[in-house]
This record gives sequence, structure tokens and C-alpha cells, in this order.
Amino acid sequence: MSLCPVTSESLAAVIEERWNQFVDELAAFCSIPGVSADPAHKVDMERSASFLADGLTRLGFAVEFWGPADHPAVYAEKVSSAERPTVLMYGHHDVQPVDPVEEWDSPPFSPVVHDGALFARGAEDDKGQVWMHVKALETLLAAGDQLPVNVKLLIESEEETGSAHFEQILMEHRPRLSADWCIVSDTAFFGHDVPSICTRLRGLVTLEVTVTGPDIDLHSGGFGGAVRNPTQALASLLASLHSDSGHVQVPGFYDSVRSLTPAESASLQSLPFSEDVFRKEAGNIPALWGEPDFSPLERLWTRPTCEINGITAGYGGPGSKTIIPSRASAKLSCRVVPEQDPHQLGELVAAFLESNAPPEVRVTTRVGAAGRPVVIAWEQPLLVAARAVMREVWGKEPVESGTGGSIPPVEAIGRVLGIPCVLFGVGLPDAQIHAPNERFDLGQYKKGIRAIALLLIALSKEE
Amino acid sequence: MSLCPVTSESLAAVIEERWNQFVDELAAFCSIPGVSADPAHKVDMERSASFLADGLTRLGFAVEFWGPADHPAVYAEKVSSAERPTVLMYGHHDVQPVDPVEEWDSPPFSPVVHDGALFARGAEDDKGQVWMHVKALETLLAAGDQLPVNVKLLIESEEETGSAHFEQILMEHRPRLSADWCIVSDTAFFGHDVPSICTRLRGLVTLEVTVTGPDIDLHSGGFGGAVRNPTQALASLLASLHSDSGHVQVPGFYDSVRSLTPAESASLQSLPFSEDVFRKEAGNIPALWGEPDFSPLERLWTRPTCEINGITAGYGGPGSKTIIPSRASAKLSCRVVPEQDPHQLGELVAAFLESNAPPEVRVTTRVGAAGRPVVIAWEQPLLVAARAVMREVWGKEPVESGTGGSIPPVEAIGRVLGIPCVLFGVGLPDAQIHAPNERFDLGQYKKGIRAIALLLIALSKEE
Repeated sequence: MSLCPVTSESLAAVIEERWNQFVDELAAFCSIPGVSADPAHKVDMERSASFLADGLTRLGFAVEFWGPADHPAVYAEKVSSAERPTVLMYGHHDVQPVDPVEEWDSPPFSPVVHDGALFARGAEDDKGQVWMHVKALETLLAAGDQLPVNVKLLIESEEETGSAHFEQILMEHRPRLSADWCIVSDTAFFGHDVPSICTRLRGLVTLEVTVTGPDIDLHSGGFGGAVRNPTQALASLLASLHSDSGHVQVPGFYDSVRSLTPAESASLQSLPFSEDVFRKEAGNIPALWGEPDFSPLERLWTRPTCEINGITAGYGGPGSKTIIPSRASAKLSCRVVPEQDPHQLGELVAAFLESNAPPEVRVTTRVGAAGRPVVIAWEQPLLVAARAVMREVWGKEPVESGTGGSIPPVEAIGRVLGIPCVLFGVGLPDAQIHAPNERFDLGQYKKGIRAIALLLIALSKEE
Repeated sequence: MSLCPVTSESLAAVIEERWNQFVDELAAFCSIPGVSADPAHKVDMERSASFLADGLTRLGFAVEFWGPADHPAVYAEKVSSAERPTVLMYGHHDVQPVDPVEEWDSPPFSPVVHDGALFARGAEDDKGQVWMHVKALETLLAAGDQLPVNVKLLIESEEETGSAHFEQILMEHRPRLSADWCIVSDTAFFGHDVPSICTRLRGLVTLEVTVTGPDIDLHSGGFGGAVRNPTQALASLLASLHSDSGHVQVPGFYDSVRSLTPAESASLQSLPFSEDVFRKEAGNIPALWGEPDFSPLERLWTRPTCEINGITAGYGGPGSKTIIPSRASAKLSCRVVPEQDPHQLGELVAAFLESNAPPEVRVTTRVGAAGRPVVIAWEQPLLVAARAVMREVWGKEPVESGTGGSIPPVEAIGRVLGIPCVLFGVGLPDAQIHAPNERFDLGQYKKGIRAIALLLIALSKEE
């Protein structure tokens, strides 16, 4: 087995040469509206999977579709040599819904490049970072003649809806998925010039609560004053979830949350957190909110939350409609920290809402998808290698960061496949993922391609 | 001037002979989707006005369109003799929006007849009752050779959105509209077999409240725990409007509400109110709600209310979307009782919501259309005549009733034109107006046509 002759410079030269192609391809990928939450986009999910499959087939990968036919995960592998280590890459090609679509400056599936970024739904989360991996593989194959390690990719299409079939896919294909490490790029840098590796993800559980009153919408004049309005009852229930300062008031909500160790606290405190920058990234809010006994980063990364993601109730069209709506419902999601079981926490909130149902209405709940939280050790060979690559490409020592977000598959990969993961995301905190005008910084895309290639070379020398 | 030779029997014979035509015409009228709240139905509003105008022109009425071109009020008059008294008829041909459209058993604008009723949006409120007036005029002209009184009709097309131009129309055309009495059929009987005349209408004011947090929807993982969710803030604000028992907690909300006189209380108590029947009519609710110190009828007719008509916030589509929505808004409406100024009450609620805005979000309000409440004297010639006609047609002494609903034009007619109104509505309490599967009982339609004709005859003998 010969060592790969590729250098950082030769990689950079290939990327420079093919740069326009790399950007155009990403734009084409992002033009496919693969919204996994919406059944209307079934065909687009298949088109999105095919686009990715074609890109990998052209690089000589053997590609298969796994899982449900209407939400296929793309599996691809290219084995160089049984003697070399194997790297699994995980990502997702499905994207978030686009509404409120009227707030996009350009249509979400008509990608445009300006201000050094590509703007489109999925540009960063996670099509951009998935395509960055694919282009790193292309760059390695162009700069050398083979990949430095065996590579397997598993790119699912249900991450934005809770990865319903992902664990089943892992179970079913466990032997095929055997690898030494897993690289996941679905996170962001701590700041614009602060390279970082995330070692902490919150878990997630979703739930819905519906308050039903009259069988039908009632005339608010004919019945108002003697009938409990389900919207009023829902507002009261939702208001009871939080204290005015943001502490969740569901009994038992924080029961199994452990305190941070002094080292963990110190690590958090050492980060260059700026409240002003955060307020700006958070859509220019006038002030922060949340549990007063914890710092913002503690609240974001180490405390569970309960958020209302949407309310559907009564009339929202033009003008007015003087009704007492028949029903009102809300979609909620809780972020979960280590030691908490997400499904149990969802059930706890659901039971709290049901037990506080007023007698004049009916309250029903449904606990949905759940994903466990993740903590990754900073001092392990995979992260040491990844940190060195970041230092080389971005010229700075990366910091250990967390995210309040959730990537349930990362937890599943660790548990089912028993291999270490590195969260090698290069997004930026103001990328507006999940929101209108999502963008991927093209500087990060370019550096990320080289960094992934270099990380594979570094890992080929491990073991 | 010769007395009209028409009898109750000859009217009934004409109605029987033309019954299929009368039902078919009403179905055709109801098939026009004249939803005044929705600008998309502008053309339908014009079609609806033309349908009505054609029907009146065929009866020899001189017809004009008044008010805004896209929401025309239909004015029609037929003067028999300057010596006879003149009756003004008021109604509206615009209808409520139809959503939730999926809850209709048949499409709202494809009228069907079954179970003795015509089902369609507007079937009762108010196209059915307007067409009942038109058919009463046709019946009189067919049974005799002229109308017993001079008749003027003013049928507007903005009632369901607050009658924005109605008062202006009254002012502008005051001389043309001079009349001795006004008949309005836009209310319902107290019960299925309880003929009644309504003497009490609540007023109305609408308002909207919007809570704005981040400029954009935020990722609920990346930001949850440190950002106040506008949906949570809106839920808290809305929950603060009512006590758990339904008393409105806005300071000053009840300030100018006077207590009922012993006679008023006695009249209310004498009505055959059944909580079980009401619960059924109110969409089978498990229990009533509202201010514990007042009876249900007192709460419905004599107490102001504040209802949430709808909430628009975040994601309501399939699956989940883990966001902190950028903003959340609610549509509210308050019912207003005598001595209260509706606009002032709207401003009071708006100020309460704004003054309770948490510092992490921005709260804005907009007070919309307002209409004043109405009280009509029971012992006056117009009502005495109307009560006699009801007794004759329905075979029972009518009761004095109220409604919690609002018909602001009735107040305006009294104030601007200075003439007495009778609320001669023959709807039924379970007609599901403003809700899916609205219907007009055809037995009431038939009797109502004869009753209106008889009332005009009776009024020709007044003075």
C-alpha cells in the first residue's frame, strides 16, 4: 500500500481549478425542493436522492438506496484496500420547509450567489455540507489516483422530520456500515473567525397539543360569554408552561439534569461569547431571555427547553371572522440534555397539559419523534486529528463548542455502530438555517472541501 | 286609495304554487361565493349584487348600486302612492368565509336541500332572509296588483366585515331613504318552536395584536433557551385577558356596564332557556363557561365579551418544524353592551396588551371595525304589529329575546334615519351561521315569506 502523494497545495490547486463547477453543482442540488416534512415533495425527495447518487456514481462509488422508497437514504461506498482504515460520512439531503416564503429575498429553490454566499433552502443545512464532502472526495481523486481511506457515505432524507427510519437502517445494514470513524458536517463554527468542533448536542422530542371545544366554529356573538373558547384555553395552557423569566414550570422537567463540572463551566466561560453578537444573530432581538440562574451558553447547550413552534387556531385570513373556533392546536418541541430521556420528557409535558385541561374543553396530545442528546470526548485520536486539520486550514486553534440543536442520528451512530463521531461542521452562526434566506458562506465551502480531504489523509495514517 | 284585497289564504296559495321556484332561486343566490372579507371574491360580490338587483327589477323595482364599486349595496324602491306609509327593508347579501372548508358535508357554494333545510354558506345569514323579503314582495304583487305600502330595500355587501361604508351611504342618501319603519330579518327565533322578536343586540369591535421577536424564524435548537419565543409571549398575553372562570381581566372593561332593571331580569328569567339545548346548539360542548355571577342569557345578551377569533403563529403544516417563530398574531373581537363605546373598548384592550408587552418582544395592536349596541322598545306600534303577525303565522305568542350578536347597521339606521326598526328574523338557533354546514330551515323560509307580506299589509293600516 503506497501512501497518498497528495499535498495540501495540490488539493487547493484542484479546488481552485474546479471552483465554478463546484458552486454550480451545489446550486443545482439546492434547486431541488426536497422538503421531507411535506408529502407534496415526495417526488422531489427522490430527485434529490438521485442527484446525490449520480454525483457519487461519477466518482466511482457503488450507490444504493436504503430505507423507505419515498424518503430514500443514499448509501455509497468506495473501498480502496482492506488494509486501510474506513471512514463513514453521515449527512442529510432533505431540507426544512420554506415558509414564511414571502420573507425570502429570492425564491428558496432558485439559488443565487451574492455577498460571498450561496442563498437557498438547504444551502448550508445540510446539502452544502454534504456536497462539500462529495467534492472533497472528487478533489482527492483528481489530485491523487485513489482515496487515502475506504469511504462509506450514508446520507439520509428524513433528518428534518426526526430521522424516523434511520436507526432501523443502521440496524439492518450494520455489517455493511462497519467503519473506524464517522465524520458529520451538520454544525457551525462558534463565530465567523472562530473554528470550532462541537462536542455537545441536545436531544429533541416533538409533541402536539389540541384543544377541542364545540363540534363546529360558533358565532362569537351568539355564543360568546357562555362558551369556553378553545383558543383561550390553549393560550392559558401554553402560558402555564413557562415562568415569566423562562423557567419551564412542568413539575419534574429538570429532575435528571445534572450540574456542570467545574471544568465544563470553565470551558464554557472561556468562549468568546458576545451578547451583542448573539442578539444580532438571533434576528436582532432587543434582549435575551431565559433562566436567570444560568449564562446564555449554559441555557443554550446544557439546559432543556420547551418551545412552541406553531399555533393553528381559528381564522387567520384577511379582515375578520367573528367566531369561537371549534379547536386550537400547537406544535411544541423540547430540547433535551444528557441524563434525560427525550420520549419520557415529551410524555411529562403532554401529561402536564392534559392534567390541566379545563372541564369545558377536551385536551389531547401526541408525542412525536424523539432523539437523544450527545456528548463527545475532546481528547480522542479522531478529534485530535480533526483539530490539527482545522488549525492548518483556518490558521487558528479550534475551540470546543456545543450546540443547542439536535442531530439524533449522531447518537444512533455511536450507539448502534459503536464508532466515534467528529462533528466537523463549518457552517456559520448567521446562516439562517431553518429560516428565510438560508445561505452557505462560499469561503467556508472552499476551505471545508480541503479540510475534509486533509482529514481523510490524516486518518489514513492513524491506527 | 283602495285597501289591499289580499288575504293570508291567498298569499299562502301563491307561495305554494311558486314554492319550487322560490327554493331554486334561493339556491342559485347561495351558489355565488360573495365572501366580503376576501378580496379574491370581489367579482363574486358584484355577481351577488347583480343577482339581487335582477330579482328586484323583475318585480318592477327601480334599482341602483350605492357605495364602493367592489362591494356595492343594492338599493331598490317601488312607490305605490305618496299617501301610503313607507317601509325600508335592510339586509346584507355578503357572506362569511367558509373555512374550515373540509368540515362541510357538501361544498359551501353548491347548495343542497335535505332534512327540510337548504345547506349553503349564506343560506340563512343573510341571503335566505333577504330573499324571503324579495319573495314576500313577489307574493303580494301576484296575490294583489300592487304593494300595500311603498317599499325601499337597502341590501349591503359589507355586513360580515363591519359595514365600513354603510353609515356613509345612509348619510349621503338620507332623503331617498326616508321611511316610516324599517324591517330587518337577520336574527333567529329563540328556539325551534319559540317565535320571538329580538330587542337587544350587542355591539362589536375587532382588534389584532402582533408580537414580534426575532427578525427571522430561528432554529429552536440553536437559539432556544436564550430567546423569548413570540408565540409564548402571545399566549401569555392572551391568557391574561380572562380569569379562569371567564371574567375579562382588562381593568375598566366593565366600567360603564349598567345592571339590569328588575323588569329586565324578570323578562330574561321567564324565557324557556335550557342549558342542555344550548350546549347542543353550541356544538355539543361538555359544559358552559363564563362569569359565574350571571346567568347564561345575561352573559350572552347583557355582558361584554372578549374573544380570540384566531391565532397565526409559526408552523402549522405536516410534521414538525423546529423553529422559534419570528412573530405571532391574534385576531380578537369584543362584544359590547349599551352604555359602552365599542371603539373605546377596543382601545382599552389594545392598551392593556401593549402595556403588558415583555421587554424581549415588540407588541403592536390595531383596532378595527366597530359597531354600537342596540336596544329596541317592545311596546311600540311597529313591534305590536309584528307580534300580531307572528302569532297568526306561527300560532304562538312571540317572546322578547336578545342576541349576543351584532348588527351595527341597525344601530346606524335608528340614529341616522331616526326610524324604528323591527328585528323580524326567522332563523333557527342551530342554523350554524358563520360555521360549516350553515342551513336555512325551509319551513321558516315559507312561513317567513307569508309573515313579511302580512306585516306590510298590517303596516299599511297603521298611521
